[in-house]
Amino acid sequence: MPKNKKIGILTGGGDCPGLNAVIRAVTKSAHENGYDVIGFKDGFKGLVENDFIELTDCMVSNILTQGGTILGTSNTANPYRWAKKDKKGNLIFEDLSEKAISNFKKNKLEALVVLGGDGSMAIANDLVNDGLSIVGVPKTIDNDLPHTDMTFGFNTAVRTATGAIDKIHTTAQSHHRAMVVEVMGRYTGWIALYSGVAGGGDIILIPEIPYEIKSIYKTIKERKENGKNFTIIVVAEGAKPKGGDLTVRKVIKNSPDPIRLGGIGMKLANEIEENTGIESRATILGHIQRGGVPTPFDRVLATRFGVEAVNHVLNKRYGKMVVLKNNEISSVLISSVTSEVKNVPKNYSLIKAARAVGTCFGD
Amino acid sequence: MPKNKKIGILTGGGDCPGLNAVIRAVTKSAHENGYDVIGFKDGFKGLVENDFIELTDCMVSNILTQGGTILGTSNTANPYRWAKKDKKGNLIFEDLSEKAISNFKKNKLEALVVLGGDGSMAIANDLVNDGLSIVGVPKTIDNDLPHTDMTFGFNTAVRTATGAIDKIHTTAQSHHRAMVVEVMGRYTGWIALYSGVAGGGDIILIPEIPYEIKSIYKTIKERKENGKNFTIIVVAEGAKPKGGDLTVRKVIKNSPDPIRLGGIGMKLANEIEENTGIESRATILGHIQRGGVPTPFDRVLATRFGVEAVNHVLNKRYGKMVVLKNNEISSVLISSVTSEVKNVPKNYSLIKAARAVGTCFGD
Amino acid sequence: MPKNKKIGILTGGGDCPGLNAVIRAVTKSAHENGYDVIGFKDGFKGLVENDFIELTDCMVSNILTQGGTILGTSNTANPYRWAKKDKKGNLIFEDLSEKAISNFKKNKLEALVVLGGDGSMAIANDLVNDGLSIVGVPKTIDNDLPHTDMTFGFNTAVRTATGAIDKIHTTAQSHHRAMVVEVMGRYTGWIALYSGVAGGGDIILIPEIPYEIKSIYKTIKERKENGKNFTIIVVAEGAKPKGGDLTVRKVIKNSPDPIRLGGIGMKLANEIEENTGIESRATILGHIQRGGVPTPFDRVLATRFGVEAVNHVLNKRYGKMVVLKNNEISSVLISSVTSEVKNVPKNYSLIKAARAVGTCFGD
Amino acid sequence: MPKNKKIGILTGGGDCPGLNAVIRAVTKSAHENGYDVIGFKDGFKGLVENDFIELTDCMVSNILTQGGTILGTSNTANPYRWAKKDKKGNLIFEDLSEKAISNFKKNKLEALVVLGGDGSMAIANDLVNDGLSIVGVPKTIDNDLPHTDMTFGFNTAVRTATGAIDKIHTTAQSHHRAMVVEVMGRYTGWIALYSGVAGGGDIILIPEIPYEIKSIYKTIKERKENGKNFTIIVVAEGAKPKGGDLTVRKVIKNSPDPIRLGGIGMKLANEIEENTGIESRATILGHIQRGGVPTPFDRVLATRFGVEAVNHVLNKRYGKMVVLKNNEISSVLISSVTSEVKNVPKNYSLIKAARAVGTCFGD
Repeated sequence: MPKNKKIGILTGGGDCPGLNAVIRAVTKSAHENGYDVIGFKDGFKGLVENDFIELTDCMVSNILTQGGTILGTSNTANPYRWAKKDKKGNLIFEDLSEKAISNFKKNKLEALVVLGGDGSMAIANDLVNDGLSIVGVPKTIDNDLPHTDMTFGFNTAVRTATGAIDKIHTTAQSHHRAMVVEVMGRYTGWIALYSGVAGGGDIILIPEIPYEIKSIYKTIKERKENGKNFTIIVVAEGAKPKGGDLTVRKVIKNSPDPIRLGGIGMKLANEIEENTGIESRATILGHIQRGGVPTPFDRVLATRFGVEAVNHVLNKRYGKMVVLKNNEISSVLISSVTSEVKNVPKNYSLIKAARAVGTCFGD
Repeated sequence: MPKNKKIGILTGGGDCPGLNAVIRAVTKSAHENGYDVIGFKDGFKGLVENDFIELTDCMVSNILTQGGTILGTSNTANPYRWAKKDKKGNLIFEDLSEKAISNFKKNKLEALVVLGGDGSMAIANDLVNDGLSIVGVPKTIDNDLPHTDMTFGFNTAVRTATGAIDKIHTTAQSHHRAMVVEVMGRYTGWIALYSGVAGGGDIILIPEIPYEIKSIYKTIKERKENGKNFTIIVVAEGAKPKGGDLTVRKVIKNSPDPIRLGGIGMKLANEIEENTGIESRATILGHIQRGGVPTPFDRVLATRFGVEAVNHVLNKRYGKMVVLKNNEISSVLISSVTSEVKNVPKNYSLIKAARAVGTCFGD
Repeated sequence: MPKNKKIGILTGGGDCPGLNAVIRAVTKSAHENGYDVIGFKDGFKGLVENDFIELTDCMVSNILTQGGTILGTSNTANPYRWAKKDKKGNLIFEDLSEKAISNFKKNKLEALVVLGGDGSMAIANDLVNDGLSIVGVPKTIDNDLPHTDMTFGFNTAVRTATGAIDKIHTTAQSHHRAMVVEVMGRYTGWIALYSGVAGGGDIILIPEIPYEIKSIYKTIKERKENGKNFTIIVVAEGAKPKGGDLTVRKVIKNSPDPIRLGGIGMKLANEIEENTGIESRATILGHIQRGGVPTPFDRVLATRFGVEAVNHVLNKRYGKMVVLKNNEISSVLISSVTSEVKNVPKNYSLIKAARAVGTCFGD
Repeated sequence: MPKNKKIGILTGGGDCPGLNAVIRAVTKSAHENGYDVIGFKDGFKGLVENDFIELTDCMVSNILTQGGTILGTSNTANPYRWAKKDKKGNLIFEDLSEKAISNFKKNKLEALVVLGGDGSMAIANDLVNDGLSIVGVPKTIDNDLPHTDMTFGFNTAVRTATGAIDKIHTTAQSHHRAMVVEVMGRYTGWIALYSGVAGGGDIILIPEIPYEIKSIYKTIKERKENGKNFTIIVVAEGAKPKGGDLTVRKVIKNSPDPIRLGGIGMKLANEIEENTGIESRATILGHIQRGGVPTPFDRVLATRFGVEAVNHVLNKRYGKMVVLKNNEISSVLISSVTSEVKNVPKNYSLIKAARAVGTCFGD
């Protein structure tokens, strides 16, 4: 009896709500088409080490609503630059891509579905160039991948950030404070912009629009003069002043996550209190933005992406990454996504809308 | 000193999460441009009776997150067909449109912003034909207005429906039951489709795809044979069997809301239990789908709509309804929206994706 | 090598948020004490049919937050009155308690932990009288079990009901309607009382206080005269008028769940609209009150109950049901819980507090 | 015509979910009894400066679900130690209690209801000693006030903290990390303990049980050996190592909130990563724990407190603070609450239950 054809799947990079929904959709849709599915553990690490599990219907039942990834993930495992320590304890890098490629073949994979951000897509592209049949699925809560209108996880991150801003509002009003909420976004301001508008933030600071600190002081003072003695500032972790940068980030060495510690949020709260005399507090949301039950929107988008990835396998359309474009699912070359970041355009319509309701962007 | 120019605003039809966010955006954005804003109470009723309040910054502060409408609404008030009772107590209709028109002029309105669904847009269109300067903002939790990719309120309704399906899942699994969840959608299946996919519904029934009851029994039995001894059926209130219709709706006379009572959900649960022997229960979500804190997505969309409505006033682009098209805000003629309903296309990509993961549509 | 001692566990009756948290606590705590744990499937059915699984640490990982029960449950399986059909298709009852007892012994159980409501406790008590070592854990979202201040699941049900009332509020206000919200509680008004007070219900109707319909009309009219043109009525499904009962429940025969259909909520909305002229709508929450992620309070209470159940096994304190009494966990004889229901006392302090803020109880 | 008698109310100290529910209950219940209510702004500041508003039914409508306090609050305003700057800019303190007392009399107050924590109760007690008729209502999200089983706000804070731990879980599992979640509690571990148990925290660190860092490393390593390659550590901000203290808190001078910056959470994540080699991240929840829609439990408790405060006024029972004791509302002398903090007892039953399911407390 002939065996079923087989698809592999792996999740790379930071975890993101909706990954499990994609895994479920790929598995169910592949099974409907007579394919088996194996899932490599911990991103490309599982591919290099041939560490995988077979994904059954039962295993993907109930995971639609779960955050994270049942396959595990790894931010660092790169078959082409495998980190190990030499005898002296120094980090050296090895090319183990042959192992990855031979495991693909050993498992008689029809194709490999790679879920990941720009880093994972760069690796996927190298594997495509080395002859593997790969379909990419974009993943980033930051929404900064080009060529796709939206990535799953973003909507959920915005929900969590907005929920936090909603909570902060009552303290700001009750205490007449300036409250700074630092949200994710090292290079782009998508989460800050959307959660800032949704949460009614008075000032929104994003990396794409370097801010003038005096403009922030002025807004806070003007609000006070108009009887609004509180201000909500939503700031992307990568926001920065005009011409400046943030040295405070380096204060504590060996921090596991230095950018969180005394980052832009804390700096701003300090500066605002010192210069306006208005009591200020910072909240740094951090990893809770990556977690939680995905929103219905993200579950739907993830399901559509997963189904389309299998469609690509069925039609042997490899080297492509599925995308959302004008409400429909299509795809682009994986090679086209690796070299750029999708920034918030300075004249983006939502920025204009936010300005129209009085939001200050610090410029 | 010259007085400010003035914009009027009213909300018509059923309430919908995001109405207040539009009212806030219109008010704030109008104020930024030097306009005053007055809000008519209870839809067109306030326009006919000249019952309004001036909307201050303070009044729209804190309403971004509130469901409903601070202006009140009315499903029935139509200036052109004003219902009243004659001496014998019979309902008769009067044309009070002149009152509406004269109140517009008496208040020296630059323009009137009308938030509403197809019914309100039909009235708005009549007023446009009678010479008033009007900008429409589409509102329906059902998402069935043509020409706009999405309406605010829909995303929130889908969140609530999906949340209910998530809750029902545990009972279904623990009790090995078929659980029917009836969601809103008298004419279209948008809420059922999106919440059904997001909630992992096994069977989704929508008005656009009349169902074959035997196909439903078959799916439930096959699931049981495959070891899945529970089934989630998500059904739009307007779903109907092939060639048939629902007489059960008329069982209890004088019901305030007959469609909710013994509607399709209850009927299906009855039929499934009788014909498959599997214990079945129905949940009818009803009005909770209209309420609650709007999702961040709906707050953002409502804000964009409100700002664009004011932009239209600033540019004297009247007789238009703002819409979302391919992620950008534009507008269409109000006259173009009144005559049709936006159905879920039978070959809609999300239906195909749902089928690909094994969802049954009863056909 | 001596085998570990073994504890059995089963969940009976309707599902309830927190069951899995108890299963987890019993399993983890038993393992810490060197016991193995087996879980019988679908309540007493699994005990009669010797259908069980061994509960490993891995299996109870991640279930703390899940509604329902991973063991499945059954409302009807009673070893002493086992339902089957005779040749003519009539339902007859058999006593299979010997099977249950022999399976207890065959599995060399040290003890059996029974999670359930009054029905399950009655069975548990019979098994105790037949010599089995049993510890009971009370379970009912209705909170109507005597001897315990609170049962897990109740807090979660109140959260869900209150959330629905919150959502209904915006529609009531926007449309100037009377909105009836029917919540669970066939015999007692705990959920209605707590969610009614928490949700700011204007009228709360519970089985313990039969209502006078005229008192309801009066409240609604007085509110309108005081400028509050909406009213929220929270009603337990078992509420009834003074001296009367509800025939409307029987309207549709063979309904899988007749009490939900045209029950008290629908009846009230009809009556209110007809007699006050105020537009009225009913929402029947139904099964969503049984589902969902348990609240932190319920997870904590369930964990404490589970741990104490194992403590009882360790100390051979059998025939007891663990309870919460004045914030501490203790236990009572299982025999003491089977014959009564814990009603809301008419002079209960929370009823007095609700009256003090103007709530009408229809009396 | 005789004027109504009058009650004053103010909210002091940090904001807390449920304050508005108390304000609403006091106002509604006072109105039902024929009293007027005035609310002083920003805590004792409003009393000293005679800055107040009259609380109407309309103003307290809709605030039951709102976090914060519509009256505003102040952490620092103390009539007996009024901070001002002398000519040289140094902070000096003045006794303005006579103003507070004379404003009480000028407004012909029957009584003053003071909502606050230990600081506000100390001031209230001084005012009682100076002859004012005062009823206290306990408020602290930390739950550390003696004589009351629970304070409102605590349940909501635990909900928010538990929700964050739930979200963090998926990242921890997907990335095989140790995730540290720092929750509020400078002096007591109530929030950490309850949210830690509810969220399934593997390690819970509270101020009452100084920890041994090696015990933490050991737990993490043992979990890894047992196949659980992630660990959740829930830590109260005031937790500290045995015999040690935290110098890292002082790293950045002039921080508006130094304890949040590089506090215990960050320190632990650093230490764990360095010493176990397991990737570690910290999340500091901060002010979001103070905000948000209060849970139904807190709304009910706040309503009961508010009603009982008015009962005390009706019965002229002054100098008392209302409390929750064994599920009933009673009261204690305000003087009895000012000198102690309610710690988590080391042998508290919930700590024992947590240990029983394998939770490590670092000792």
